[in-house]
Amino acid sequence: MRLSRFLPVLEWGRAYNGNTLTNDLVAAGIVTIMLIPQSLAYAMLAGLPPEIGLYASILPIIAYALFGTSRALAVGPVAVISLMTLTAASSVAVPGSAEFIAAALVLALLSGLILLAMGILRLGFLANLLSHPVVSGFITASGLIIATSQLKSILGITASGEALPELVSTLAANLPATNMPTLIIGVASTAFLFWVRKGLKPLLVSMGMKPRVADLSAKAGPIAAVAVSTLSVLLLDLEAAGVKTVGQIPQSLPPLTLPLFDIALWQQLAIPALLLSIIGFVESVSVAQTLAAKKRQRINPDQELIGLGAANVAAAFTGGYPVTGGFARSVVNFDAGAETPAAGAFTAIGIAIAALFLTPYLASLPIATLAATIIVAVLSLVDLKTPRHIWRYSRADFAAMAATILVTLAVGVEPGVIAGVGLSLGLFLWRASRPHAAVVGRVPGTEHFRNIRRHSVFTDPRILTIRIDESLTYLNARWLEEFVLEQVAEHPRMQHLVLMASAVNAIDASALESLEAINHRLGDAGVALHLSEVKGPVMDALERSHLIGDLTGQIWLSQNEAFAQLIERMQRAEEAEIGKDPLLARGLI
Amino acid sequence: MRLSRFLPVLEWGRAYNGNTLTNDLVAAGIVTIMLIPQSLAYAMLAGLPPEIGLYASILPIIAYALFGTSRALAVGPVAVISLMTLTAASSVAVPGSAEFIAAALVLALLSGLILLAMGILRLGFLANLLSHPVVSGFITASGLIIATSQLKSILGITASGEALPELVSTLAANLPATNMPTLIIGVASTAFLFWVRKGLKPLLVSMGMKPRVADLSAKAGPIAAVAVSTLSVLLLDLEAAGVKTVGQIPQSLPPLTLPLFDIALWQQLAIPALLLSIIGFVESVSVAQTLAAKKRQRINPDQELIGLGAANVAAAFTGGYPVTGGFARSVVNFDAGAETPAAGAFTAIGIAIAALFLTPYLASLPIATLAATIIVAVLSLVDLKTPRHIWRYSRADFAAMAATILVTLAVGVEPGVIAGVGLSLGLFLWRASRPHAAVVGRVPGTEHFRNIRRHSVFTDPRILTIRIDESLTYLNARWLEEFVLEQVAEHPRMQHLVLMASAVNAIDASALESLEAINHRLGDAGVALHLSEVKGPVMDALERSHLIGDLTGQIWLSQNEAFAQLIERMQRAEEAEIGKDPLLARGLI
Repeated sequence: MRLSRFLPVLEWGRAYNGNTLTNDLVAAGIVTIMLIPQSLAYAMLAGLPPEIGLYASILPIIAYALFGTSRALAVGPVAVISLMTLTAASSVAVPGSAEFIAAALVLALLSGLILLAMGILRLGFLANLLSHPVVSGFITASGLIIATSQLKSILGITASGEALPELVSTLAANLPATNMPTLIIGVASTAFLFWVRKGLKPLLVSMGMKPRVADLSAKAGPIAAVAVSTLSVLLLDLEAAGVKTVGQIPQSLPPLTLPLFDIALWQQLAIPALLLSIIGFVESVSVAQTLAAKKRQRINPDQELIGLGAANVAAAFTGGYPVTGGFARSVVNFDAGAETPAAGAFTAIGIAIAALFLTPYLASLPIATLAATIIVAVLSLVDLKTPRHIWRYSRADFAAMAATILVTLAVGVEPGVIAGVGLSLGLFLWRASRPHAAVVGRVPGTEHFRNIRRHSVFTDPRILTIRIDESLTYLNARWLEEFVLEQVAEHPRMQHLVLMASAVNAIDASALESLEAINHRLGDAGVALHLSEVKGPVMDALERSHLIGDLTGQIWLSQNEAFAQLIERMQRAEEAEIGKDPLLARGLI
Repeated sequence: MRLSRFLPVLEWGRAYNGNTLTNDLVAAGIVTIMLIPQSLAYAMLAGLPPEIGLYASILPIIAYALFGTSRALAVGPVAVISLMTLTAASSVAVPGSAEFIAAALVLALLSGLILLAMGILRLGFLANLLSHPVVSGFITASGLIIATSQLKSILGITASGEALPELVSTLAANLPATNMPTLIIGVASTAFLFWVRKGLKPLLVSMGMKPRVADLSAKAGPIAAVAVSTLSVLLLDLEAAGVKTVGQIPQSLPPLTLPLFDIALWQQLAIPALLLSIIGFVESVSVAQTLAAKKRQRINPDQELIGLGAANVAAAFTGGYPVTGGFARSVVNFDAGAETPAAGAFTAIGIAIAALFLTPYLASLPIATLAATIIVAVLSLVDLKTPRHIWRYSRADFAAMAATILVTLAVGVEPGVIAGVGLSLGLFLWRASRPHAAVVGRVPGTEHFRNIRRHSVFTDPRILTIRIDESLTYLNARWLEEFVLEQVAEHPRMQHLVLMASAVNAIDASALESLEAINHRLGDAGVALHLSEVKGPVMDALERSHLIGDLTGQIWLSQNEAFAQLIERMQRAEEAEIGKDPLLARGLI
């Protein structure tokens, strides 16, 4: 039971049968066809030789299949993580150099170790620091940067830069050097792939194909583009005309590699690896959850960290680079009927076969075609609807998203993520530090107490009741003191302050100390502090404190009881006072 | 009206009269007597020449009097900020050197600018990141470090280090070099000052003095120690016997100084200045709030930032070092009857007179006496009761406090603060990311819904109701998805899921997206999603979203209505189903 929790393969492996095998094999076949051009393209996007994309799609997938909990997640190279790898490794080496490839291996290893550590220490909640608007903004901005960066391959020119300003200016500067045959291949491939996405399925259906089969057949579109453009290059000798191709790809299984154990390099790559791990994890978990929910299955996010960590460690030792669960490929895998992670393992075998036997045929594949594959894939990541929805729903969330998009586009991917996380956290802490609170009064004829600003309610100038709509923590303890003391200063006739705690789910040590301070300060000012409607668990905690004993007032079960009894008590005290004075007693004053 | 908000002097200045003047003058006299030895001692604690302590007690106090909102706060050099100045300036220069003095000026300027910026941008809430346990732990640990560091002056030896391990080992190594006359002065001064604290007031009272006068007279104890020990040094020629004295102090008003505008230095000192500013602000505001509340007055924390910022900028331009509101001195000021910040201005004049005319008499003041002053002052900061209370109340808060104390003692003041803030924030985010939620059922015979684990309640296997006891934000959006999907996987017969939102005060864009995802995923699994008891402001926001339109279920005003109507609806649907089947309709199955 316990072992199967850490090795989910033991669970689904037991129930494996011929039927599952058939479904998994079909899905694996389709994903393999889709993955071959994608893995080459993403490796080149990351500034790496194309075969590294293939290597990153073999052992890592098998590692995930053993440790991951999602049945349909397709792990491997993805666009955004490839861009982040390019950015991070570029900071320590020149793209394409041996040092660059070594840096990518170190990134995979660090990322793997970070994910494993987070999984073992159950730190998955750290991924929460990336709010949806920040992730969405980051993905959109990354998609735009990636698409722009691929224009150079479509045009057959060079360009450099990790952010939009430099990319656009170098593209513009080199535009006159555009290579016409490359441009034709690039534009034709892009147009064809867009058409495959939108127009091929309806066409196949109208030709009598079943919708599901038509849908899956359309996934082979990129392979068709690869085949046709490679043949064109060979037949028309376009390499002589300046069309850049993938070139010789070694015909081999993944090599065993040992990432550099260089402390200085590890330190330089630690933060990028952390960002890359968290972004990869967040993306992967959302896809995995979406797919699992469709079958009323569940994934375990902590175990997902371990699965993705294992995949990245595997990538580091078999000549790969950072990987994660890809959105498009996972959906295809799911739609094609994948039932268990074994589908992933079969995909790995398919890619291994491709690495061994197919690579010679890919030497003349034009890079422009791969660029087209990337552009078509990443433009679907660019989401212009979400910013509009968020703007309508919450200006603060929109600000975090806008900051992420602008900083990512203008400065780069890492500053973009950091800006988004920082702004989200800052806004959250700012809100948490000034919660909603209302002075309340009794709705006439009821036992309900409502905000005096919104309802016409009954109050007594000697009793002030404040309802606090938030747990009391160190973030708002100081606010509580200020708010209460402000109210005391504004209500000079007040004798009793009642804090209505019906919405207070917790009181931490700082807030407790603030309550004690408020109690003493009110005591100095001659005001008694009361609490009402304290929740059970909060009361349990308060009983371990000094507050209960020191309280100048009382703790009331209900706000209504507090209000009624305090009024009655003051009435009696006044009457006793009147009784003492003969004139007052006789009603003469 | 508006100007007086930024220059509180305009407000209290209008009502100033002879009575207030007398009260302020008395308080200023007592505080001046107390401040002279303290300002010399704290400057030397900070590694600075003693006169810098006097300079830091003149213009900064006047600047605070103009801009601050507290009537009784006594601004000037304080122990913890002096220690932090020593630590920060030591990282860029050797204590006592001209570069060190320059670094202290830059620290004061940066600290002033940071405080001003926080005040103008209303960023005072950032001080909330220091929870009470962290501040308390930090002050206790700093007090222990300061007291230990002063032992060297009591013993007449040298010692170095910013944290306990190095301090103790260098003290131990140099112990054989102890200077006997110094030790006698040091121990006698310490014993005398402790006795003044505890025993002098009862003695004076028993001699017929009024308690309040006795209390205030006891504050002159340190001046008596200064006078007696200085006379002893002069009469017994103890300087020849190796007793170190303060030495010549220039007889002058504060010099005008221009802090270095050296970007590299500013960068090195930026983080220490930030920590120092926030610690100083937190300390100062707590004292000011306590004293204001006693008279039902209020302080404005944002304006306090400006007051303290102005004080530090003034310190930077008049040969001082970082200052803040001191606890002990402010209490004395308040008890002595200070009514307006003018008391502070009079104190400044007193110190200016001392700087001009008293300094020659301080040349033979033994440093051991100043060390005794510091030890007696800081040991009152060491608080061993609070850790016990916090341990009883909350283990998480205790962990943050313990980490702050241990890291401060073992590594130093800056890592200590950072560790405490990091741990507090981490624990807060961890808690916020997994809020309390309960599956609820109806208490039989009522309309109340309670946790099924704690109460015996009525439920229906086709309807699951989850009550969420927290606002939904990006920190717990992922948790929400996981929790709901887990519940769906565990309840295979469920057809309706109701989220009871009675304790949800806000839903941010991330949580909204999670609700939309939950809605779609439940839809795929054939479960309708409902919301009940949504609060007004939350509903207003939701109406600007797509969720309302896309919801597979409904939004119910009350949970009871939701439960009752859903059951009735399913009943009717089942009856209709039965009605369709002739055998079922006739009751034959």
